[in-house]
Amino acid sequence: MKNYADRLINAIEKKGNPCIVGLDPRIDQMPDFVQHKYKNQSISDRIIGAISYFHRIIINTIADIVPSVKPQIAFYEQYGLPGMKAFENTLVYAKEKGLITIVDAKRNDIGSTAQAYSNAFLGITNIFSKKVPIYDVDCITVSPFLGEDTLIPFVKDCSEYGKGIFVLVKTSNPGSGDVQDLKISESGEEIYISLAKLVKKLGKNLIGKKGYSSIGAVVGATYPKEAELLRELMANNIFLVPGYGAQGATGKDIVNCFNPDNLGAVVNASRSITYNYGPNTISETDFVKNIEKNIQEMIADVNGALDKKISFL
Amino acid sequence: MKNYADRLINAIEKKGNPCIVGLDPRIDQMPDFVQHKYKNQSISDRIIGAISYFHRIIINTIADIVPSVKPQIAFYEQYGLPGMKAFENTLVYAKEKGLITIVDAKRNDIGSTAQAYSNAFLGITNIFSKKVPIYDVDCITVSPFLGEDTLIPFVKDCSEYGKGIFVLVKTSNPGSGDVQDLKISESGEEIYISLAKLVKKLGKNLIGKKGYSSIGAVVGATYPKEAELLRELMANNIFLVPGYGAQGATGKDIVNCFNPDNLGAVVNASRSITYNYGPNTISETDFVKNIEKNIQEMIADVNGALDKKISFL
Repeated sequence: MKNYADRLINAIEKKGNPCIVGLDPRIDQMPDFVQHKYKNQSISDRIIGAISYFHRIIINTIADIVPSVKPQIAFYEQYGLPGMKAFENTLVYAKEKGLITIVDAKRNDIGSTAQAYSNAFLGITNIFSKKVPIYDVDCITVSPFLGEDTLIPFVKDCSEYGKGIFVLVKTSNPGSGDVQDLKISESGEEIYISLAKLVKKLGKNLIGKKGYSSIGAVVGATYPKEAELLRELMANNIFLVPGYGAQGATGKDIVNCFNPDNLGAVVNASRSITYNYGPNTISETDFVKNIEKNIQEMIADVNGALDKKISFL
Repeated sequence: MKNYADRLINAIEKKGNPCIVGLDPRIDQMPDFVQHKYKNQSISDRIIGAISYFHRIIINTIADIVPSVKPQIAFYEQYGLPGMKAFENTLVYAKEKGLITIVDAKRNDIGSTAQAYSNAFLGITNIFSKKVPIYDVDCITVSPFLGEDTLIPFVKDCSEYGKGIFVLVKTSNPGSGDVQDLKISESGEEIYISLAKLVKKLGKNLIGKKGYSSIGAVVGATYPKEAELLRELMANNIFLVPGYGAQGATGKDIVNCFNPDNLGAVVNASRSITYNYGPNTISETDFVKNIEKNIQEMIADVNGALDKKISFL
């Protein structure tokens, strides 16, 4: 079973960039040609059809360009069971096209319940005495709020099944500091610093040949100062960096998330790649061209910033 | 739209106890008569059949006895799409039987993504220009780790749709202190105390006629000292209390979660009610009797402890 971090770093090196595309199904914001494609079918089939088709086009367009996609499960879950069927379709297709699948789920719970989440996404579920992989993705995001013991089931499955997790350390939203920036009396350190040390500890036995661990951290592009500190603390952990694009961060904001080797992070953009296409009467051909343009602009911005990183440090 | 807290308190008063039953599908631990019932069907239909039937029996047995059920979504999710179909079936049946539905999902994410989770469980999703309720449950559990701004979409939907949330404040697991007990430099208070103040603030405009807010807190029965402090701080917020039964807490451990009116909390038990039945060759009739016995023992223990609460304070 190949180490997840090695697989991700290989994909980044092969594609020549660390950009990943977030898949957030918002049907009402999809182009008309997608919304109308299944209009004579049942509501349930229209939902499955529209979401699956939309992501099929996107995946076809970006599969040779970027290393990975990040489906955000909340946007699928809001469409109920048809949404979850479309989630499964999207994952199957992304894997078929050779993309690394990172599910943004921010899951966690206590002991045996954390194990159930890990079964769903990373490991296997025992069903009628058979070991069955369920969504079987490469990686998910998890929350550390319930403590170290609740992360262990995920870490064990990462080891057993060659999978990865990104632990929330410093998220990209305006209020992320409410809990994450609180300074702890005993150590004088912020919570996010103490979580970084936990991530480092949890990941130390899962470092692959490329020098990176399968246990990574979510570090928002919107907090470059904190990212600089975190980069030093977690030299061997990969960062999943949200906040680029629609949330306001640009190339110069993400450079602190990378190591001197220009590795160690993947930068996600969702809306700015997939919903940034002008009027919704756009044709399928123009929509594809637009996705290509958006992702190439992002890659130029991110790789450009990394090339002259020295000037930002 | 009736206030959620009023609906929950009414149900507690009507049933005469604050006990709720957790529904955690673990097919391999279900009695043989459930596991074999659909054995000639496809794996997918066997999963849907077994989970739905198991919970149908439980719901039939407890619907007139307790105010609410708490399906733990992780255990459904580990069975993939058939698991989620069984989740939907279980919810539909619980609502039909008049039970308040509290989904233990511990969801959260940033801004528009938090809204998507809230759409899925509490509010509505816009689908092809129609406003569609999805799982439409009474209440879910949410994590506060990402900050106050990420709780607002849920609070708004609680107000608009007469729903509730329980925010994780002090969870029942051994490692809950890793983050939640950290003392903050500035205030000298633990994180769980500062979260309690946040819950109080978020809930102040959603207090119903019974004096309780629709914004509640998760407070583990395994931490009775912390519960005492939290009870004082959040006089008008209902506690969802896990940790009773299989996790080790008993009646005397939960009294601190209640107000002097013997209201203000619901106590959950899952495994000790639904999987505590002896050999798995048990008959359906005996299984039902066993569930009845387990829940009546819990009610006697919890109500007994509340009646003589004065001696524990």
